[in-house]
Parts: sequence; C-alpha cells; structure tokens
Amino acid sequence: MKVRPEELAERFSALLAVDDDHGFLQALEDVPAADVAEVIRNLDDEKIAKLFKTLPEEFSAAVLVEIGEDIREDVLELLTPHEIAEVVEEMDSDDAADIFSELEEERAGEVAELLEAEDRAEIAQLLAYPEDSAGGIMQLEVVSVGLERTVARAIEKIRLAFPDVGEDFHFVYVTDDEGRLVGKVPLPRLLISRADAEIRSLLDDDVHAVFADLDQEEVAQIFRKYDLPSVPVVDHENRLLGRITVDDILDVIQEEAAEDYSRLAGTDDEEFREESIYRKAGLRLPWLVTGLGGGLLSAFVLSRFEVRLESLIALAFFVPVITAMGGNVAIQSSAVMVRGLAVGQVTGRDAVRRLGREVGVSIITGMICAGLVFLAAWLWWGDLRLGIVVGSAMLAVILISTSVGAFVPLTLSRVKIDPALATGPFVTTSNDILGILIYMGMATWVYGLLP
Amino acid sequence: MKVRPEELAERFSALLAVDDDHGFLQALEDVPAADVAEVIRNLDDEKIAKLFKTLPEEFSAAVLVEIGEDIREDVLELLTPHEIAEVVEEMDSDDAADIFSELEEERAGEVAELLEAEDRAEIAQLLAYPEDSAGGIMQLEVVSVGLERTVARAIEKIRLAFPDVGEDFHFVYVTDDEGRLVGKVPLPRLLISRADAEIRSLLDDDVHAVFADLDQEEVAQIFRKYDLPSVPVVDHENRLLGRITVDDILDVIQEEAAEDYSRLAGTDDEEFREESIYRKAGLRLPWLVTGLGGGLLSAFVLSRFEVRLESLIALAFFVPVITAMGGNVAIQSSAVMVRGLAVGQVTGRDAVRRLGREVGVSIITGMICAGLVFLAAWLWWGDLRLGIVVGSAMLAVILISTSVGAFVPLTLSRVKIDPALATGPFVTTSNDILGILIYMGMATWVYGLLP
Repeated sequence: MKVRPEELAERFSALLAVDDDHGFLQALEDVPAADVAEVIRNLDDEKIAKLFKTLPEEFSAAVLVEIGEDIREDVLELLTPHEIAEVVEEMDSDDAADIFSELEEERAGEVAELLEAEDRAEIAQLLAYPEDSAGGIMQLEVVSVGLERTVARAIEKIRLAFPDVGEDFHFVYVTDDEGRLVGKVPLPRLLISRADAEIRSLLDDDVHAVFADLDQEEVAQIFRKYDLPSVPVVDHENRLLGRITVDDILDVIQEEAAEDYSRLAGTDDEEFREESIYRKAGLRLPWLVTGLGGGLLSAFVLSRFEVRLESLIALAFFVPVITAMGGNVAIQSSAVMVRGLAVGQVTGRDAVRRLGREVGVSIITGMICAGLVFLAAWLWWGDLRLGIVVGSAMLAVILISTSVGAFVPLTLSRVKIDPALATGPFVTTSNDILGILIYMGMATWVYGLLP
Repeated sequence: MKVRPEELAERFSALLAVDDDHGFLQALEDVPAADVAEVIRNLDDEKIAKLFKTLPEEFSAAVLVEIGEDIREDVLELLTPHEIAEVVEEMDSDDAADIFSELEEERAGEVAELLEAEDRAEIAQLLAYPEDSAGGIMQLEVVSVGLERTVARAIEKIRLAFPDVGEDFHFVYVTDDEGRLVGKVPLPRLLISRADAEIRSLLDDDVHAVFADLDQEEVAQIFRKYDLPSVPVVDHENRLLGRITVDDILDVIQEEAAEDYSRLAGTDDEEFREESIYRKAGLRLPWLVTGLGGGLLSAFVLSRFEVRLESLIALAFFVPVITAMGGNVAIQSSAVMVRGLAVGQVTGRDAVRRLGREVGVSIITGMICAGLVFLAAWLWWGDLRLGIVVGSAMLAVILISTSVGAFVPLTLSRVKIDPALATGPFVTTSNDILGILIYMGMATWVYGLLP
C-alpha cells in the first residue's frame, strides 16, 4: 500500500533515460501526484523538465501543486511560459494564484497573457487579498444554489461544476436572490432527499462563514473549534466569494507553529526548508550577533564589579548559574504565554489573571531554587554570606525574569506585534544582563553591609 | 455572525438562575455546541450541573465532546453514572471511548454497566488500541457497500447509517466479499450517477488506508501529504475497521507541535492547559532543578580554574559570553533538526547530509562570531592574548555545540526516542559546561604558552 520514494525515483530515472514515454506514463498510472512530487527532489533538472513535458497537463498541475515551495521556484524556471500557462489552467484558483505569486514579475506577465480572460481575472481577484488572510487562501470554485430551488437543481449544479470543483467538496451553499449566503446543505442530506424536495427545507443555517479579510490564524481557530471540513468566505455584504478547505488549514497550523518554534529557537522558519548552508547561516546570524552583543554587554557589566570579583573569586563561579537560570525561567514563561496567545485571544481580565499566575509560579519555583543554591553555596564554600548572596540573587532573578518573560509577549500582543518575538536568544540574553546586575549588586551590598 | 462567549455566559447564568428551563432551551436553539462548551468555563459547578440536566442528551453529548480535556474531568464528576451513560450513548464511538478513558476505573465500570451491549463492545474495542495510534483516534461509524452493488444500494446504506454516522463523511467505502477494502466512492460522484450504475464502475482505488497500529503522527503526515478529509483504517488483512476524520488530525498536529515547543522551552505541554499555579510550578521545576544542577556543575568546573581567574580577572568577564553563545547555537541546530525529523522521516544518507550542513553552518557562523569577539576583547582590554583566547574558544564552542546540538536529536531518533528531548534547558546547560571547559582550557594553554 505504501510507496517508497527512492524506489520510484530509480524507476523514473530509468524510464526517462530510455526515452520510453509510453512506458513511463504507464508506470505512473497508479502513482498519486503527491508521491511524484516527492520523487522530483531526487531527479536532476534535465529529467524534471522532461517529466513535465511528458506528463498530461492535468497531472503536471497536480504535481506542481504538491511539490514544496522551496523547490517549486526552481522547477518553474525549467518550464516555458506557455507550459506554465497550460498547467495553471488546470489548477484550482487558489493554487493558480500561489504559482503566480511565486513567478518573477516579467514571467508572470508573459504567462498571464497566455491565459483565458476568465482565469486571468480570477487570479487577479485572489492576488488582491493579503497572503495570510482568508481571501489569500480561499478558492473560488464553489457549488451554490438558490433558496427557492429543489434537490434536482442542486444535483444539476454539481454536475455542471464537476470539471472545475472536482470531488473535494462537502456542502452545497445556499444563497438568496441577492447572492447573500443563507445556509448550506451537506452532501449526505442531498443524497437521501427526494429530487423534488425544496432546498429551503434541507437548509442548515450554521455556516460559520468568514470574511475575506480575516487573518488565516483566526480562520484556523474556527476550523478547529467547529470541526469543519470547509468554510465559506463572504464579503462584508455577506455575499459568497469562495471557500477554504481544511487541507489548506493543516498547512496554516503547521506554518504558525513552525514560526513560533523557530522564534523560540532563535532562527527563522524559512530555515526548515532551506538547504544552502550560506543562507542557513545568514538566517541564524542576526540572532547570534544580537546574542553576542548582549554577551559583550554582560561582560562589560561584570567588569564594572571588577574589584568585588577580585577580592572574592568564588563570586565569579556562580555567574553562569545565575544567568542560566534567569534565561531558563524567562523562556518558560514567555513560551507559555506565546502559546496561550496563539490558541485564543486574551481579554483584559484574562491577561491580568495570566500574569498573576506567572508571578505565583515564580514565587514557588524561586523559593525552591533559591533554597537549593543557598545550601550549595553555603555548604560547599563554607561561606554563609556567599550562600545569602547567591540564594537571594537567585530568588530575585527568578521573580523578575519570569514576570518580564510573561509581561513582554502580553504587551506586544496588545499592541498587535507578534508576541513570539519576545522569546529566544533576545530573552535569554537580556536576562543574562539583568541577572548579573542583580547578583553583583546584591554581592556589593551584602559584603559591604555584613562585616 | 460571531458569538461573544462573555455575553452568552451572562445570558446563560441569568436564565439558569431564574429556573426558566423553557426560556433557556429557546435561548440555546441557535448556539453551536462548541460555543456552549466555551461558555461553561465561566459558569460555577452548580450551574454546570443544572445545564447538563436541562439540555437534551444529544446536545449534552456534543457539548461534552467540545469542552477541553482540562475541565471535562471536573464536569464529569458533576454528573451521575446514569447521566453519563445517557450522554455517551449519543456520541460517536471515538468520543465515547475518550470519555471512558478519562473516567476513574470504578465510575467507568458503573457507566459501562448502564450502556447497551453493542456500545460497550465498541468502546472496549477502541480502548484496546494505544491512545496515539490510528486505532486510538479512529471512529467505528463508516458507510461501506459491496463491490457488486449499485448506487441505489449505496444511498440506501447512507439512509440507514444516518442516525449514527451523521453528515460528516465524505466517502462511501467499497469492500469485497470478504470485507476487504478495495476502494472508495466520493459523495459527489454518487450524486451525479444514475441509481442503477454499478459501484464497481465508480470506484476510486486510491484509498490511502492506514493500519490501526500506525502512529498518529504518521497518520497526520498522510493527511497532509494527500490533502484528505478522512482516511479508512484497516487491519493487517486489509479489512475495514473504521475511519479517521481530519478534525481529529488538526488536534494531533496541534498536540505534536505543542509537545516539541514545550520541550524547547523547558516545560511540559500539559502546562498550556493547566491553571493551578502549584501544578504549573510542578511541571517546570524538574527542568529548572536539572538546569540548576548543571549550573552548579559549571560553578564547580570554573572553581577548578580558580588560580587562573584570580590572576587575570578579565577572563571571568567573558564567561557569560561564551556560555550564552554555546547555548544559543546548540538550541538553533537541535531545533532545526527536531523540526526536520517531525515533518518527515530521515533516511541514513539524508542524516549524514543534514549533519554535514550543520557543520558547514557552524564554520561560517563560528568564524564571524569569533572574529567579532576577538576584536572586542583585544581592542577593549588591549590584551591580544585575551582576544586570542576568547576568539578561539568562541570558534571551538560554536563548532562543537552546533554539531552536538544536531547530532544528539538525530541519534535519539535513530534509536526511536523522541528527539525533542534533546532541546531546551538540558542542551543549554550541558553546553554551558562544555563552553567553560573549552574556554578555561584554552586560557590555561595560551597563558601558559605565550609569556
């Protein structure tokens, strides 16, 4: 049942090499487009170009939709504008628009001229929406029927729409005289109804429509909350524009999670698709250089306490303990806050409650960790004052770093900046400096005060 | 179009308080179960119990399915075994099994005795599969038809299955005489076919069936790859057992991403659903105490170089720079590797290539960061040797930490341990110690060698 991509790649290579188009197409017969798309990664440019020239256009279109964005650009460069136009004509409108947004401007213009006027207009309509909005991920192919019609008419509409809409739809949408969406009829309900039954009588008015300008992350939340296979997209007059299917939402969820994850790790989510080591290094360096700058600032702060360190070198040993813990707790609380914000909106009262919880957590974890490190420093070096300095600095660092770690993403989200920016190396580094200041300040004070 | 949960909660509270059951049910009429589930979070226990006693069982079932696992346990405790049994009878088999797995053993037994024999058997069948396998997330409600039948018979089957299967299905599965799955018919195809057409002639044999013992993460990959709304689940004789719908896969993708994310942040993904600060602290403490242990080990390692530090205190200033950078690069490379592993399996050749890329990246980033820190240390303190020590230690730390960061998750995944374990505080802390060793070792050597 399972297809092995390496084996397929070998078979493809052999068939493409002997120039046996017929044999090649036969070998492909039962292979899903998604598997062919995977195999392409293992072929050289010449073979890829040949593959697309040999495949029927409809199948080429499916393969082109399925291959990852990372190599699609390269593949598109191997095709002529004419070939691209032919393939684009076979695609759903959302996929066609995606391909267009990936073409260079000049080539996009060339391809557009070769398209039928209707397809060109559809693509232009979709490209007008922001990439990460409901309009940016919807497709225009829907089946809709008037409120006054019968089941027979709905089935007729499905038959007419079939070449465009295909088999991947779950509802017939119902509109009133002015094209406004009033409900949906699930396909099973159509199947078990009599041909002369009125659509009005089968209507489900729970459509969960989304506006075209809604952010894709919020669209994904609606899919998750209501367990839907697809949602209709409407304009602000509630007129049906298109629909979004759940397979696109899987990608959205994946993307948003990858974005948060890469921020936390201190890199860019492009990296997960990037293969060149120079570009990979380029994506990591901004974070590293920022971290380095912060590190040098830590060094500078420490150097201000030079006299203190020289007279009690044991103080220096605990610097990494303090900085590491400050970074750890800040990352924990900022990450928990960022995920909380990603899953649902946070209202004012809720924000205060979350912040309060982080303070509570920091008191508990701070007391325990401070107690442990106090004992370690005291018993190990036999210096009670060292224990007091390290322990109380630890408590202060955990209290402050946890709260700051939670507060910054909350604030960013209130002013509509991506809260995930407040995670990763930026947080750890700034907490390093904070930790050193608290620790050395505490040391100066305690050793100055207690004889 | 949008429902505001706070407003709904107020209306509910008021209606439940005045004991107006009729008014309450009327107010609920057009509210989706998922919205009611959200409102429950804002009600007190007494009102929740009353709500479930007032609602029709079918609606109670839908609400119970939709409320988060975190508060479902509490809600279940408010209901009698008899009430639970009545609600469970209304659920799809997968949801019913989920509820059972959340009940305490004694109560589960009480509820089971109140169920019809058939429902009890279904739940027992599902509970036998591991929670994170295809069998653990599938439901038994499917519509299937024999290969020899006609469209009319398939529609008849849909009509019969309707009360159980509902409207959330997309394919009629086709089986041979021995119950083995041979294909599927999409509903639109049924709708536009003649009643006497043979099922055999409409068959699509591209079913993408999964074995019941397949891991849910791999099931999610199949959904993503082939853009499916549902997949059939079969046993190893290819007999149809049930199906998995994409809404459950949304949850799987979310869960797996949350797991990796929380590991990276040094906490547990349970935390995202946890409200008690004691339990939240409990989930973070293991990571923090581990980090603290590592920190104390760093302190110990540093103390071994006490003489060196005392004679050149500037060395101490750069300790946080070195440890922070080692942690940063290790997290970057381990996170990139973990996400790569999460998205697709990694073959032997591929693993070597990925590792090679990380080494390449570390050479580039290492040279740049080392150069910068060399200049900073040299120009700032006017000590060329300090620049050499800090710079070369930085290069070595970045090379080693990046490679270790990438190597450990790869190795864990080869031996079938979750690679995400090798991210977060564990990685940063172990790289702190490594960094200190390299740095102070380098300092001892350079200052010993150069007069």
